[in-house]
Amino acid sequence: MKKLSFLVITSAVIGFSGTAAAQFAKPDDAIKYRKSALFVMQQHYARIGAMVAGKAPFDAKAAADNAAMAEILAKLPWAAFGEGTDKGDTKAKSEIWKEPAKFKEGADKLQTEMAKLAAAAKTGNLDSIKTAFTATSGTCKSCHDNFRSQ
Amino acid sequence: MKKLSFLVITSAVIGFSGTAAAQFAKPDDAIKYRKSALFVMQQHYARIGAMVAGKAPFDAKAAADNAAMAEILAKLPWAAFGEGTDKGDTKAKSEIWKEPAKFKEGADKLQTEMAKLAAAAKTGNLDSIKTAFTATSGTCKSCHDNFRSQ
Repeated sequence: MKKLSFLVITSAVIGFSGTAAAQFAKPDDAIKYRKSALFVMQQHYARIGAMVAGKAPFDAKAAADNAAMAEILAKLPWAAFGEGTDKGDTKAKSEIWKEPAKFKEGADKLQTEMAKLAAAAKTGNLDSIKTAFTATSGTCKSCHDNFRSQ
Repeated sequence: MKKLSFLVITSAVIGFSGTAAAQFAKPDDAIKYRKSALFVMQQHYARIGAMVAGKAPFDAKAAADNAAMAEILAKLPWAAFGEGTDKGDTKAKSEIWKEPAKFKEGADKLQTEMAKLAAAAKTGNLDSIKTAFTATSGTCKSCHDNFRSQ
């Protein structure tokens, strides 16, 4: 029975959409995947934020580890915004599919800034981390303003 | 207002629990974090499974990439099983906190097998991938049987 449902789900992969979306068995999985990846990323990112804000003691190794993980996770969500994933348990605005180039630009910018943050965190210099963290947060906000319902 | 809630959440970090749990603002965040990390891991893992089962064409690069990502993600969930995270939107059994050594053994075993899978996937040899995938799946099942409600 489990094997059968596996086959059915796998066959559905081919049906449901284009290249990136084909990695997911169904649109709901893609939505859950991108939300999950963003949540885990945000948790690691927020740990750096707590240090930047002086709410947690600065721990250079923890900052570097969390930034490295956030950098990795920042690459994941974007393949999960395929066709058919605009409806469901999501705050994604239709603008994502209406303005794909602008959305991609935002996603790329986040990854660029997150890479800079990870590089800054490797140096262990809190001032550099603060600068990079502020720039990265700007890209989060900009994308959320444009592409996510409140 | 956003800044205020950030401060309140950050202060809550100190209150709620021990070392690992202190990375999370509240128990619900820890639960959401571990479920999210496991879901994203499972999605990457399942892509290898589809190849192993012959349900998707074998793509050595995709297998290696997905295994590498699953290996990274397999490290994350365990810090989120801290004190106070046994209640809420979770299928975690109380055995996790009653038999922490056994739970840790299972978590470590998954990571070991996932690393072997990633190494096998790097070689591009489908037979090696199949062997490692089967061993890894065994650790998933064993832990779910012991520590997760159906």
